[in-house]
Amino acid sequence: MRFIVGTGAAGQGVYLVEGTQAWSLTALDSKVGPDLRAIIDGHVDVNALAERKTSVPAEPVAGLTPGLPIALPGKIICLGLNYVDHIKEGGYDIPDYPALFIRTNSSMIPAGAPMVRPTCSEQLDYEAELMVIIGKGGKHISEADALSHVFGYTLFNDGSVREYQRKTHQWTPGKNFDATGPVGPVIVTPDELPEGANGLKIESRVGQEILQSATTSDMLWSVARTIATVSEFTTLEPGDYLAMGTPPGVGHAKKPPRWLRPGETVEVEIEGIGICANPIIAEEDMSATEAAE
Amino acid sequence: MRFIVGTGAAGQGVYLVEGTQAWSLTALDSKVGPDLRAIIDGHVDVNALAERKTSVPAEPVAGLTPGLPIALPGKIICLGLNYVDHIKEGGYDIPDYPALFIRTNSSMIPAGAPMVRPTCSEQLDYEAELMVIIGKGGKHISEADALSHVFGYTLFNDGSVREYQRKTHQWTPGKNFDATGPVGPVIVTPDELPEGANGLKIESRVGQEILQSATTSDMLWSVARTIATVSEFTTLEPGDYLAMGTPPGVGHAKKPPRWLRPGETVEVEIEGIGICANPIIAEEDMSATEAAE
Repeated sequence: MRFIVGTGAAGQGVYLVEGTQAWSLTALDSKVGPDLRAIIDGHVDVNALAERKTSVPAEPVAGLTPGLPIALPGKIICLGLNYVDHIKEGGYDIPDYPALFIRTNSSMIPAGAPMVRPTCSEQLDYEAELMVIIGKGGKHISEADALSHVFGYTLFNDGSVREYQRKTHQWTPGKNFDATGPVGPVIVTPDELPEGANGLKIESRVGQEILQSATTSDMLWSVARTIATVSEFTTLEPGDYLAMGTPPGVGHAKKPPRWLRPGETVEVEIEGIGICANPIIAEEDMSATEAAE
Repeated sequence: MRFIVGTGAAGQGVYLVEGTQAWSLTALDSKVGPDLRAIIDGHVDVNALAERKTSVPAEPVAGLTPGLPIALPGKIICLGLNYVDHIKEGGYDIPDYPALFIRTNSSMIPAGAPMVRPTCSEQLDYEAELMVIIGKGGKHISEADALSHVFGYTLFNDGSVREYQRKTHQWTPGKNFDATGPVGPVIVTPDELPEGANGLKIESRVGQEILQSATTSDMLWSVARTIATVSEFTTLEPGDYLAMGTPPGVGHAKKPPRWLRPGETVEVEIEGIGICANPIIAEEDMSATEAAE
């Protein structure tokens, strides 16, 4: 199944997507609620709802304004260095444990929403990533059992302000600027993709300019291995996010560096999932925009 | 004012504390709710409630079982290296920007609850810290205005599994083991303490053994400067936590290292705030305990 959380003719909610058409599951049953939370927590029988989809009007997917897949995930754990060629371009050694950091909810935005280049730095960079959404929680999950804990996969742009990422050895500030982490719009259940979302082409672009182009097979830590590793120290909960790291080609490694500029639109695409496209806006132009709205 | 969130004779809720006595503000007015959220968000007039406290029975503070001050804080941002002598004992250079990391809610526990030494490592370490709770949110908060954004101060033990903190350059795993971050029990409003909670004695102990002993005046980044620095990249929200870093004397720097052992009780104390005491339990003994309860 494929979902988009967002706002369409039927209002805000979860839409079931097939091809270019979408049906509001929230309109079908109010228990579905505004985001994926109730479905992930198993409070509604989504298969039964999907069978009744034609009880509500079909809408064009293109007419939906995406929202956040989960408004309040318990945690967002991100892999920093998971593609060998990206590790090399950053000047890091190949690690025997994943470099993990955390993003806050306030850094996340939906696909389509403006990604904000802060006033304090022009070094806003893109990172195309596969995002895992946990379905079934657990601690000490074995690698063999790990994929049964996945609810679905979506797209993530791990927007990074490099100057602040490298202010100290801890990457936190550069990874947590407000409105720098687009996620979505389409969430795909595992049955629609290769096991572990492996072997999928992953790309980032601005217009015709291809910035990153790789395959998810190049990940050092697979989805299963990541779930096993992370759940050794923290209990994974339904709705938690795991961001799987980015392939080579990020802006700070290009010569000269290729920062995202206000007015551009950056796209992240993964084969079989979709495209996450976001315009770049300068922080100093935000109040003007907000006032005009 | 001084509060404890917890469970007493009047049930779970927010207790107003004066000396050795406590009154349930939640029993006085159900709008107060189960934790500090409604008070911080300004949904209740806590001063008016405090004046009516004798409408409910006084209870002994010693009879309260503490809970988490805020069940779901938006984010928990922690300073890693904020006392010069602690920076030196860890082998780090003195930075010109704070080393920031994030803890997840699932790593946090109330004062009094068991702090868990994981099966995978015996290197569970203590870190006595001042914890700031944000009252008024904001972005780009000036240092001059910063202290007006503080709701209150409490105690924090930034429990760290050193082996996992140093698996890579990113500290995330070692700082996010389940049930390693005790917070509370007493939350003190700023009017009861020196400006910025400065000049307070801070200590950690196991029994008669003093592990850390310093003063909050030794912090490189004051509370005000930290709020200004952090709010440059992220919007602070009411109920967010800022952990202010730990003084020297942590276990991994002692010779031989002094890890916390199951059966011990670790205490963090800050002058004018109180004591946060937590027993250490081994993860492998947890299921037995849970089954017995």
